[in-house]
Amino acid sequence: MNALRRTISLVALGTFQLGRRMKSQHLHGLLLGTGLGLSTIASVTYAQAEAAKVNRKLNISKFMAEPITDSAVLLADQDNMRHRMELMIMEIQADFCRALESEEFNGQKFKVDRWLRKEGGGGVTCVLQDGDVFEKAGVNVSVVTGSLPPAAVQQMRSRGKDLAENVKLPFFASGVSAVIHPRNPHVPTIHFNYRYFEVELPDGSKQWWFGGGTDLTPYYLDESDARHFHKTLKSACDEHNTSYYPKFKKWCDDYFHIKHRNESRGIGGIFFDDIDEPNQDGAFKFVTSCARAVIPSYLPLVQKHKNEDYGTKEREWQLLRRGRYVEFNLIYDRGTKFGLYTPGARYESILMSLPLHARWEYMHEPKATSKEGDLLMVLRNPKEWV
Amino acid sequence: MNALRRTISLVALGTFQLGRRMKSQHLHGLLLGTGLGLSTIASVTYAQAEAAKVNRKLNISKFMAEPITDSAVLLADQDNMRHRMELMIMEIQADFCRALESEEFNGQKFKVDRWLRKEGGGGVTCVLQDGDVFEKAGVNVSVVTGSLPPAAVQQMRSRGKDLAENVKLPFFASGVSAVIHPRNPHVPTIHFNYRYFEVELPDGSKQWWFGGGTDLTPYYLDESDARHFHKTLKSACDEHNTSYYPKFKKWCDDYFHIKHRNESRGIGGIFFDDIDEPNQDGAFKFVTSCARAVIPSYLPLVQKHKNEDYGTKEREWQLLRRGRYVEFNLIYDRGTKFGLYTPGARYESILMSLPLHARWEYMHEPKATSKEGDLLMVLRNPKEWV
Repeated sequence: MNALRRTISLVALGTFQLGRRMKSQHLHGLLLGTGLGLSTIASVTYAQAEAAKVNRKLNISKFMAEPITDSAVLLADQDNMRHRMELMIMEIQADFCRALESEEFNGQKFKVDRWLRKEGGGGVTCVLQDGDVFEKAGVNVSVVTGSLPPAAVQQMRSRGKDLAENVKLPFFASGVSAVIHPRNPHVPTIHFNYRYFEVELPDGSKQWWFGGGTDLTPYYLDESDARHFHKTLKSACDEHNTSYYPKFKKWCDDYFHIKHRNESRGIGGIFFDDIDEPNQDGAFKFVTSCARAVIPSYLPLVQKHKNEDYGTKEREWQLLRRGRYVEFNLIYDRGTKFGLYTPGARYESILMSLPLHARWEYMHEPKATSKEGDLLMVLRNPKEWV
Repeated sequence: MNALRRTISLVALGTFQLGRRMKSQHLHGLLLGTGLGLSTIASVTYAQAEAAKVNRKLNISKFMAEPITDSAVLLADQDNMRHRMELMIMEIQADFCRALESEEFNGQKFKVDRWLRKEGGGGVTCVLQDGDVFEKAGVNVSVVTGSLPPAAVQQMRSRGKDLAENVKLPFFASGVSAVIHPRNPHVPTIHFNYRYFEVELPDGSKQWWFGGGTDLTPYYLDESDARHFHKTLKSACDEHNTSYYPKFKKWCDDYFHIKHRNESRGIGGIFFDDIDEPNQDGAFKFVTSCARAVIPSYLPLVQKHKNEDYGTKEREWQLLRRGRYVEFNLIYDRGTKFGLYTPGARYESILMSLPLHARWEYMHEPKATSKEGDLLMVLRNPKEWV
């Protein structure tokens, strides 16, 4: 697994760097539409180019499926942020799916659906359902183009985007997102999503930004888990900007808030949107660091708790909390809303975030002095973990 | 049960009629604030008044709880549509809860919560959870005053209400609503809601209207059930206006539509809003007829199917369909949204509509030739039942 991850990472970032170096030499034009014709470029040796070819092919073959964009196009124009992002999210998806599969007791594997959208683009949806360790795990990549639906323009305007109303705005969006619902109530649910967005304005210019986040939803509070999780995310942020973690930690607490219940969905993590600093390359590297922090933030918790005992009481509490998860996702989550309101959206991929089972009891309130009450206390009063 | 229902009906409507007759004699002023002081009114004999007192007390004592409005106020000003509505919905709630309780195998009863809202008004929430016949049954009455939240004004404007934006609009809303999720997958889920709304405009005038509907969500299609259900609703409508049923049947199909899946939540029924014809009294009587049609439309189906055999396959299909029910309620239902966006809303009463259990499977599609497929066919192609 780790070897695979390193290979993919190396290749993914390696080729990006190669691509950028060439751009700095004003050779970009030469590459457009030339596929793998790198041997014509004096500054890259034949051997280097051949090695790159092999690695690139290897890279794509380790993904869960063929990328959405034609491989030749992806590899030919590696400087294009759309392509860099697509390769990165395909890598993150494959790494994470393999890491989860390796935790299963009986070799359960992800089911892989590669789908295309008639309006433009498509995705790769990976779902592992009814596993011994993972009751329902969904890891989705999508690379989508189209026209922004009015509701989405409205939403973006409301958070300060300078977008005209009532005009057709072509957009490009790509991202990786995952929700993992384990079977054992002592293993927390994790969610993450990293995305890149472009909107073309009527004057021909382009707005772009990144967004994303990773957050944890435990059913029972283990404070050392919470600290490990937050510390891992903080390190990923600190590499890029030490102001990020505190800001994005708070944003996460504010965002994953079930308003009608005045409680958080979980114990947070990081959440951000509209990131376009320090520049496109820097923002991409930041998002990549966050996405790569998912496995080290989460897998140790799975390993630590997946064999713990539990009974009906713990299971029912888990299902109740999953009901809250459904409430948040269907009532408040912007991604779900944006997805479902996009014409031709693949709702199965959007709703794969929902748990296999959920439960709603009228007026359920655990005792304040119980373990369930301990969790609720933290959900009602988000705290600092690092 | 039926005797009780007749008593309540008689009293509820009887006192309304008495109230209106007195208004026509310009005696209305005398009644305000005088509680039960009817013996001072010449046109009502002492004996009649005493009988009315007894009946009125009886009436209220048979409700699931004390009404929200003080009984003396309710009885004193019976001409007020707010009061007529409150008595009617309390009656409907009690009738329906008793009817359901009488179907339980082991005497399970509704738990009754009477609650007050600090912003004004309150409600009576009745829930029967984990019964043998009803897995989760919620029947709620609410009588609420306050200021319309901007989201609600927006929503009402979008369906053509002439309401100013950015001003504080005092409102009054009362209604009864119920969602019944039986345990046996052969017994359908029913939902109904009947409501009365008043908004006070800045010029001091008042807009008022009624809304409501009853609809059925079977897990397995029984065509004779569907016909019985629709026929009963049609009769209730036809008493008032023969154009109502076809119009409100279509409105129901259009409303209870899960857009992202392009399928209906169930097999429909009737749905309407903004009813202010032929006049306030006529509209109230129409809504009352619809609300009284709930028991005859539904109880025979419970009795017919509650003892039928079923296995895991039927249970899992029921839970999947309940997942769809949750999707509709949390994503599209106006009542749920309006409720949750109202500051100080009692979310437990709003969300009691959610089933005890629900299930989401990725890419579940029953065989077209199965019983599950038969239901889906009708959900995707709503049909005429009468």
